[in-house]
Amino acid sequence: MTYQDLFARIKKKRSFLCIGLDTDLQKIPGHLRGMEDPVFEFNKRIIDATRDLCIAYKPNLAFYEALGPAGLASLKKTIDYIPDDIFTIADAKRGDIGNTSELYAKAYFEMYSFDAITVNPYMGDDSVKPFLNFKDKWVILLALTSSSGSRDFQLLKAPDAELYKMVIMRSKLWAGPERLMYVVGATQSKHLKAIRELAPDHFLLIPGVGAQGGSLEEVVKYGMNKSVGLIVNSSRSILYASSHENFDSAARQKSMEIREEMEKLMDKYI
Amino acid sequence: MTYQDLFARIKKKRSFLCIGLDTDLQKIPGHLRGMEDPVFEFNKRIIDATRDLCIAYKPNLAFYEALGPAGLASLKKTIDYIPDDIFTIADAKRGDIGNTSELYAKAYFEMYSFDAITVNPYMGDDSVKPFLNFKDKWVILLALTSSSGSRDFQLLKAPDAELYKMVIMRSKLWAGPERLMYVVGATQSKHLKAIRELAPDHFLLIPGVGAQGGSLEEVVKYGMNKSVGLIVNSSRSILYASSHENFDSAARQKSMEIREEMEKLMDKYI
Repeated sequence: MTYQDLFARIKKKRSFLCIGLDTDLQKIPGHLRGMEDPVFEFNKRIIDATRDLCIAYKPNLAFYEALGPAGLASLKKTIDYIPDDIFTIADAKRGDIGNTSELYAKAYFEMYSFDAITVNPYMGDDSVKPFLNFKDKWVILLALTSSSGSRDFQLLKAPDAELYKMVIMRSKLWAGPERLMYVVGATQSKHLKAIRELAPDHFLLIPGVGAQGGSLEEVVKYGMNKSVGLIVNSSRSILYASSHENFDSAARQKSMEIREEMEKLMDKYI
Repeated sequence: MTYQDLFARIKKKRSFLCIGLDTDLQKIPGHLRGMEDPVFEFNKRIIDATRDLCIAYKPNLAFYEALGPAGLASLKKTIDYIPDDIFTIADAKRGDIGNTSELYAKAYFEMYSFDAITVNPYMGDDSVKPFLNFKDKWVILLALTSSSGSRDFQLLKAPDAELYKMVIMRSKLWAGPERLMYVVGATQSKHLKAIRELAPDHFLLIPGVGAQGGSLEEVVKYGMNKSVGLIVNSSRSILYASSHENFDSAARQKSMEIREEMEKLMDKYI
């Protein structure tokens, strides 16, 4: 998917909502657990209930790997089920030496057909660049993450600017905003202004609204650009809005609330 | 496996060789490709041919993920096949927010029964600590990796010491040498002295000897401690020593050469 396609879909849907498909067998409604592939059944109903309200789905790989080979089969079925005009993100946080990153890229871009993958920058350019060689596919590089551990290294001065800023500054030399995005936790909105100075045109993937406590208005106020430039993820607050048989309509209701707030904020700030 | 068990096996085998099971369908001998599970068949023969010569096996997850759900099934069979007295490392380079790291830890320590997993430190303490809560299981944290991308961030001054040193200094507060190791590329031997000052007792996992060009003697000279404290990995130079039907005896021959060199270096430096 191209930058323009993504922006066009955001404008059309008046939404920049990404739904995190962090599907946890312990949390899905009991009546699904007896089915042949409960994870896929759950995802399918979530997708059916929310596909007109969001512009992206983001499965976190850990939830699928935790189920062994069968979990990866559920993931593949899920990706194949997502409509082609919705952006798909493999939240995998991979990154390894060159020949190994290339294998990860092929796995997630070609075999699973994701549009984007989250990548960890720690190992530097040759661990990231193999992901950048795929037409209309995206790297979403970890910059400043939502949890308290971000203080340990990402916020260290290294030495002229914080490490997360060094990550943005260096990686901008590897690819432009049509191929590269950054992860910035919703709990980090006070840093968004500085990030927008470094990366005015890039999309930012913002997890942490909802269960992790980030504020959507703060994110929009400091993070939105003229192409919106934001993909805001919510996982648990949508998936587990209800633990009963009506989980899909509860997920739809919650997604509608978020989309409406997004529409209002787009009207206010763009 | 405990620290003392690991040291005991190194002493007994006079070897600190880890074999990286980076099994690539494109590179394994043609006669295996027609079999039901060529990756497992290849691994099985490599393990049979080398198990008395090495103290660890390290499958890199990318090679298995690249094959989809079936690749993970081959991985599981491989781990189950490895004798219990050999240390097993999931080279996964994972790391995510707390609840997600916990899922990865359960997947690799419990479901696949690995002894250790490589973890990326970028997201800080709450991304690493969930891996540290499993009895006799190990975290091997990326510190200074072998490829040129290590210059981009790991070697930045942050601000009083290079980032990789900050990773070692902070993570030492999270767990001791009986639970935590560090990845240091064999091509980084000039930094080993400084690393040993920071982490005198920790085991170091050293990839990059062989195909990536690191020198074993340099690594031993600067990196060995009184418990050896080194696990040196070789992958391609052993696995693909021959592309013919005799690949397993060629892998054994190559492993014997490395083990003999290790024995000599242990005699010289310990």
